[in-house]
Amino acid sequence: MSGRDERVLARVALTWLAEPGTRSVYHLVDEFGPVAALALLLAGRAPGEQLRTAVAARSTAGDARVAAEQAVARTERLGARIVIPEDDEWPARVEELRSMALSEAQRRVDRETAPPLCLWVRGTAALGEALQRSVAVVGARAATGYGVHVATELGHGLAERDWTVVSGGAFGIDAAAHRGALAAGGLTVAVLAGGIDRPYPVGNTALFDRIAETGLLVSEWLPGAEPLRPRFLIRNRVIAAGTRGSVLVEASARSGATQTMNRALALRRPVMVVPGPVTSAMSVGAHELLREQPAARLVTGLAHVLEEVGRIGDHLAPPARGPDRPTDALDDEAALVRESLPRRGTIGVDALAARAGVSVRTALRKLSLLEELGLAVRRADGGYALAPGRSRGTAAAGP
Amino acid sequence: MSGRDERVLARVALTWLAEPGTRSVYHLVDEFGPVAALALLLAGRAPGEQLRTAVAARSTAGDARVAAEQAVARTERLGARIVIPEDDEWPARVEELRSMALSEAQRRVDRETAPPLCLWVRGTAALGEALQRSVAVVGARAATGYGVHVATELGHGLAERDWTVVSGGAFGIDAAAHRGALAAGGLTVAVLAGGIDRPYPVGNTALFDRIAETGLLVSEWLPGAEPLRPRFLIRNRVIAAGTRGSVLVEASARSGATQTMNRALALRRPVMVVPGPVTSAMSVGAHELLREQPAARLVTGLAHVLEEVGRIGDHLAPPARGPDRPTDALDDEAALVRESLPRRGTIGVDALAARAGVSVRTALRKLSLLEELGLAVRRADGGYALAPGRSRGTAAAGP
Repeated sequence: MSGRDERVLARVALTWLAEPGTRSVYHLVDEFGPVAALALLLAGRAPGEQLRTAVAARSTAGDARVAAEQAVARTERLGARIVIPEDDEWPARVEELRSMALSEAQRRVDRETAPPLCLWVRGTAALGEALQRSVAVVGARAATGYGVHVATELGHGLAERDWTVVSGGAFGIDAAAHRGALAAGGLTVAVLAGGIDRPYPVGNTALFDRIAETGLLVSEWLPGAEPLRPRFLIRNRVIAAGTRGSVLVEASARSGATQTMNRALALRRPVMVVPGPVTSAMSVGAHELLREQPAARLVTGLAHVLEEVGRIGDHLAPPARGPDRPTDALDDEAALVRESLPRRGTIGVDALAARAGVSVRTALRKLSLLEELGLAVRRADGGYALAPGRSRGTAAAGP
Repeated sequence: MSGRDERVLARVALTWLAEPGTRSVYHLVDEFGPVAALALLLAGRAPGEQLRTAVAARSTAGDARVAAEQAVARTERLGARIVIPEDDEWPARVEELRSMALSEAQRRVDRETAPPLCLWVRGTAALGEALQRSVAVVGARAATGYGVHVATELGHGLAERDWTVVSGGAFGIDAAAHRGALAAGGLTVAVLAGGIDRPYPVGNTALFDRIAETGLLVSEWLPGAEPLRPRFLIRNRVIAAGTRGSVLVEASARSGATQTMNRALALRRPVMVVPGPVTSAMSVGAHELLREQPAARLVTGLAHVLEEVGRIGDHLAPPARGPDRPTDALDDEAALVRESLPRRGTIGVDALAARAGVSVRTALRKLSLLEELGLAVRRADGGYALAPGRSRGTAAAGP
């Protein structure tokens, strides 16, 4: 048996012994490697009472090594593969779960927060590459027509721009996001809460098959593992950690989807929330999140999402600064017109004049001046905008 | 002529000479009193070129003192009254416009930001008292059914709880807010952008008549003054400054209603924004404001609005602190269950267990413990909640 095969078997056995996300197991593997970690656990020398009890209870159900061998064989029969951290396609980003901020109670409970030990994958794309440029789109199962529309559009738009759409394969928002991406011929990844051969819900089987054909199904459970309720919460951290940012489209009060967002917040990943009608029960959770989490960002569509996730890793140019301040040359009305120009999009002369509180004639005259000074530009749609790279604030206009 | 009459005449004449909100005029009145300030202006001794030019231009149209006398007589004939700062019913809050944060360009332009010199009022209620507990509800004229519904509900709910609903009397959101308040038999105030006898739009005449009967019409222009476009922006500062907080219900991109919100922001008053479907053009301005102004607060209904405006002036009790920390007694799972209890509303055992990632049996056992310790309560609806006065965070649980 090759070294890798041995390590795969040990990681699978460890996953069988304790639920994915168990921190003490992860740290043991981190310190001793998977093979020695497994030996320690099976010898009853696990650190900590919680883990020893869990391993002992699990071991009454069978032999971990045998279970692992069967799982590996079954994985092959399913046409799936097991990916481990030493593999090229391992998504490095999930390792950041190590440094996720934990609440006091989470810190005392030994579970649900560590990186996965291994991942089952179905589909031809390389997992790590697929997740490199990825966005999670999650939300309510009992989505409304509005939510389904928004999630489909987002999935479609992201896929069109070569972003991988990651979700949980559930009814409602999840399915809409996957379908939008598929319709655009893009890559989509469903992260499951049970065995790779037990995608849930069964009603989405056709969808899962399509995802497996062109995208990826991913799971951190052994084949055959049931999609039990707590596993959805364990799974959510992989959705949050595996992507560059997460978008919540619809969620009822205290929905499970908001837990994914809380994981993303704890990981300091961009957390984006689509608002909805305040009269809709399916937007209550979204609005709650926007109210309670200052880091959660309201987004209304693709452009806002790209702005959030595109930012990461980009080296933003420092704001232009120089000894001369073109704004010094402005009279009061020109300054007022300049201040009234939108930071994004364009504005017509009428609206601009009203906004600045000047006549349309004055607005036109001052706009000419601003154009000449390179402070304003006229766009193809006939509207005006602040010149690129110029901020309205005085602070950014010069030292 | 009494001293008050003289001062009223001078303030009316000053308002006739320069548009309301002109800062140099306000400061002159502040320093010398209205009578001497008027004399200075009419003698061509106004401070600053801008004001001298404006006064000279206006003076070609007639004599300011004569215009003021005519306006006072006309006000009486209209059954309206003029309120000045020395009157009991003057709304002291509008004076805070003095300390409103100004942008650099605003600072260079001598207008639109100073407190009013006097106010025309129609209606029997005392103005200052009516505005004492007041909330502005403003938004788009081309409102959708959704926006009209939300504004009506808000107006109704605020009025039912003895809050005065202030708005601008426009079609759409403004009218809906006024109507909601009227339907609840509450007080509503329309702040106009032209003479008290020229409420705009004419299509809302029946509404203005009803408001004048039980509430108040307010204006800072002389009777007969036209509701010119720039006057709506000048007027908006009175809506923002006269109320405890402002709610934006619907607004298209860069709508005039968002200007009221910017005034309220500059005054550090609560700025509340109702989100809507991202597919609605009438919510674009609302979402823009929520994205661009960190101080703008997303609200979904009356409870959130009351939370924001009720806070001001209330002396909040310091969080309870004591030497013993009941949370110290908790095991890990109990702490997890406690952390999963909602801050508002209640939660069923099933949902709580899922949220905490424990079995329903464990959740029930830990809930008993938490109830015993006074950390959780069971509500009439059978759901569980955090005990009142207890925060989930550890910081608030003890020193």
